[in-house]
Amino acid sequence: MTWLDLEADDPFGVHNLPYGVFSTDGTGPRPGVRVGDFVLDMAVLEDPSCTGPSLNRLLAAGPKHAASVRERLQELLTDPAHRGRAEPRLYRLADVTLHLPIEIGDYVDFYASEHHARNVGRIFRPGADPLTPNWTHLPIGYHGRSGSVVLSGTDVVRPRGQRRDPDAQGPVFGPSTRLDIEAEVGFVVGAGSVLGRPVPVDEAEQHLFGVCLVNDWSARDLQAWEYVPLGPFLGKSFATSISPWIVPFVALEAARLDPPARHHPTLPYLTDRPGGALDLRLETRWNGHLVATPPAAALYWTPAQMLAHLTVNGAAIRPGDLFASGTVSGPGSDELGSFLELTEDGRRPVTFPDGRTRTFLEDGDEVVISATAAGPGGTVVGLGEVTGRILPAPAPTNP
Amino acid sequence: MTWLDLEADDPFGVHNLPYGVFSTDGTGPRPGVRVGDFVLDMAVLEDPSCTGPSLNRLLAAGPKHAASVRERLQELLTDPAHRGRAEPRLYRLADVTLHLPIEIGDYVDFYASEHHARNVGRIFRPGADPLTPNWTHLPIGYHGRSGSVVLSGTDVVRPRGQRRDPDAQGPVFGPSTRLDIEAEVGFVVGAGSVLGRPVPVDEAEQHLFGVCLVNDWSARDLQAWEYVPLGPFLGKSFATSISPWIVPFVALEAARLDPPARHHPTLPYLTDRPGGALDLRLETRWNGHLVATPPAAALYWTPAQMLAHLTVNGAAIRPGDLFASGTVSGPGSDELGSFLELTEDGRRPVTFPDGRTRTFLEDGDEVVISATAAGPGGTVVGLGEVTGRILPAPAPTNP
Repeated sequence: MTWLDLEADDPFGVHNLPYGVFSTDGTGPRPGVRVGDFVLDMAVLEDPSCTGPSLNRLLAAGPKHAASVRERLQELLTDPAHRGRAEPRLYRLADVTLHLPIEIGDYVDFYASEHHARNVGRIFRPGADPLTPNWTHLPIGYHGRSGSVVLSGTDVVRPRGQRRDPDAQGPVFGPSTRLDIEAEVGFVVGAGSVLGRPVPVDEAEQHLFGVCLVNDWSARDLQAWEYVPLGPFLGKSFATSISPWIVPFVALEAARLDPPARHHPTLPYLTDRPGGALDLRLETRWNGHLVATPPAAALYWTPAQMLAHLTVNGAAIRPGDLFASGTVSGPGSDELGSFLELTEDGRRPVTFPDGRTRTFLEDGDEVVISATAAGPGGTVVGLGEVTGRILPAPAPTNP
Repeated sequence: MTWLDLEADDPFGVHNLPYGVFSTDGTGPRPGVRVGDFVLDMAVLEDPSCTGPSLNRLLAAGPKHAASVRERLQELLTDPAHRGRAEPRLYRLADVTLHLPIEIGDYVDFYASEHHARNVGRIFRPGADPLTPNWTHLPIGYHGRSGSVVLSGTDVVRPRGQRRDPDAQGPVFGPSTRLDIEAEVGFVVGAGSVLGRPVPVDEAEQHLFGVCLVNDWSARDLQAWEYVPLGPFLGKSFATSISPWIVPFVALEAARLDPPARHHPTLPYLTDRPGGALDLRLETRWNGHLVATPPAAALYWTPAQMLAHLTVNGAAIRPGDLFASGTVSGPGSDELGSFLELTEDGRRPVTFPDGRTRTFLEDGDEVVISATAAGPGGTVVGLGEVTGRILPAPAPTNP
C-alpha cells in the first residue's frame, strides 16, 4: 500500500508506475513516473539514467537497471519512511505539461491483426485473396516516419495529397476526404542491439521496455493511390499520436496470454514461448461516443515475434525505437480498430446518439483511444489514452 | 587559388569543399571540410554551428549561415594571410578517422528513375505494366531504416531471412542468395520545417543542404517475398551505406540541368523550375572492375520535387533527414544502377577480365560507387565514393 491518498483500485497504483516526461513552470522536461493522478519527479532517485529530456537514458540502461529503478520507486511510494523525501517531488497531473516521452530512432508499423488484414485486403484488393501469401508466414511491417510521431493531444492537420477517385483516369489534389484512425499498441525498445546480430525471439524480452497506445492516423484516399508498389507513405506520414505514459512490460505480467492458434507452424526463428501475447482491451471514442473495443488479445503475432523478425536480417535496434502492432481489430463488428472497417469502407455510417452520422473524420472531430489490462491481484493496469482532434487542411499556398 | 599544394584540376579544390566528420588519435569526432587530400578542422572558425559530433548543428543553422561558413572557409584557404591560422588545423586524410557525418532523423528512399522502375517492374511483376499507374504522377517513395545507415567502408553482413523459391509453396529461411546493390544519390536536409506546413517546390532549395552517394544494399529474394502489400522492409533494412563527404548544393550549380521531358504535366504542387536536375556521373566498380556508369541526369523527378512531395501532406523535415533518389539507371545497358538490372535478373552473368563471373554478390565481394560532376570554370566536383564489402551471414543461433 502506498502512503499516497489513492483508491485501492486506481489503475495507476504502484503496481503500474508508467514512465513519462513532464515539465513544470520554469523547469525543463524530465522523466517522471505516474502514480494515481500525480507525477513523481524521478530526479528524486538521483540516478543519471533518470535525467535528460526523454526516457532514452533509462531505456539504454537495460532491463536490470530498469528493474532496480522500478523497485526503488515502489519502495519510495510505499514505505512511509520515504514520504518526506518523495512528497516535495510530487506534482498534480493537472499542474504539469507532458512531453513526448521518447526520442524515437526508427518507427516500424506492423500489420499483426489477421482480422484487420483480411478486412483491409477485401477493401483495397477486391476479388483477390484478402490475405497475401506471405501474411501467415511473417509479421508484415514497414517503416513509418519517426519525425511525425507526436504526443497525445497534439492537433492533427488534415493532410492534402493526391488521390484518384473511382472511375477517374488520373489523380486530383486536395485535402484527404477519407481520413481515418488506426487503434494500435506501441512497443518501446529499451536496450539496443548491434548491427549484423539478430535478436532471437527468446532474447526479445531483454529489449522490450514498455507499451503505449498509438493512433496511426491514415488518409485512405492518399494511401490507396500511392501504396503500390512500395507501400504506404504520405497516407500515413503526416501524424502518428502516442499516449504519454509508457507502461513497463513487467507491470503487464498478469495480462499475458497465448496468441490465437496459428494456421500452420512458423519458421523456427519465429517460434515463441507460451504467454507471448497481451490481453489489452482498447476502447475507441469518436466525439465522446464509444464506437469500438479492439482486443489486443486477437493479434496473431506477438511483440517478441515482431522484434525477432525486425532484426533477423541483422538490423540493429536503438533505445527509443518504437514499433507498433498495426490496427487492432477483433472478429466482432464492434471490435474494429479503424473507421475504414467500422463503416465498411464508408458504406455503413456510424450514427451518434444525437443523430449525427460519420463515415470518415470531419474537421473538429476528436478521437480518444484508451486501454486497460488486468494487473496483479485483481488490480487494473491503466494505459491511459491517446487523443487527437482534426484541424482543417491548410489553405493552398501553391495551388 | 589556394595556398595549399593542390593541382588546379583537383576535384576537391576550394570550388567543392564538402563537409564530413573526422577524428584524430585521442580526440572526438568533429566537423571538418575536405580540401584536396586534407581535412580542415572546422573548429578553426570558432563557430558554434561547426561543433559537435555531427554536421547537424550546421544543417540546422539554415542556408544563410551555411553560405557564410562556406565563404569563410574559402577565404581561409585562399588568402595567404590566413595560412598561419589554418595550417595547424589541417590533417592529411590518410591520418584521420572518418565518421557518419549526420545524425539521420528519417530516411526516405524514392524510386525516381523511370528506367529503373520499368526494369524492376518487368522483373517483379511479369505480365503487368512495368510502371504502376501512379508512377508518372508522383515521386514514389517509402521510409527506410535510419538506424541502418552506415558510413562508407563499413562491412555489410549478408542478411538472413525468408524467401520463397520459384514454384515452392511456402518460404524457406537462410542467407540471402540474391544480394544486390542500388547506386543512388542522397540528399541531406538542412533547415527543418514545421509539422502541418508543406514545403513548396519553390522553397525546397532553402532546405536542401547537400548531396552524398548512397548504396542501398538490397536482398532481392527477401524483398520479393515480403513487399506486397506494405513495401520493402527486411530486404533493405540491414544496411544502407553513404559516402563520407556531403557536397553542398551550391558547389553543384554548374551541374544543374533540366530533367527529362515529362510524359504529361504534373500536378501544380510538383511543378518545378528549369535546371532542377543534377548531372552527376556515377561509376560502379565490382571487385575493382567498372561495371556501370549510372547517369543521375536521367532521373525523372528532381530533389525539389521529391522534397515537395514528401512534405505536401504536412510531414515535417528535420535537419539531418536523408532522402535518396532510388537506384539511378539510364537507358543504356551499361548505365544500370543495380545488379538485378545489370544481369537481367541473374540470367546474364557479368564476366570480370580474369574470367570469374557474377550474378549477385558473393561473400568477400567489394563494391565502390563514385561520382563526379562539372564544377565552375571547367573544374570537376568530386563526390568521393561509397564502398562496402560483403561478410558471410552469421551462423544460425536459433536454427
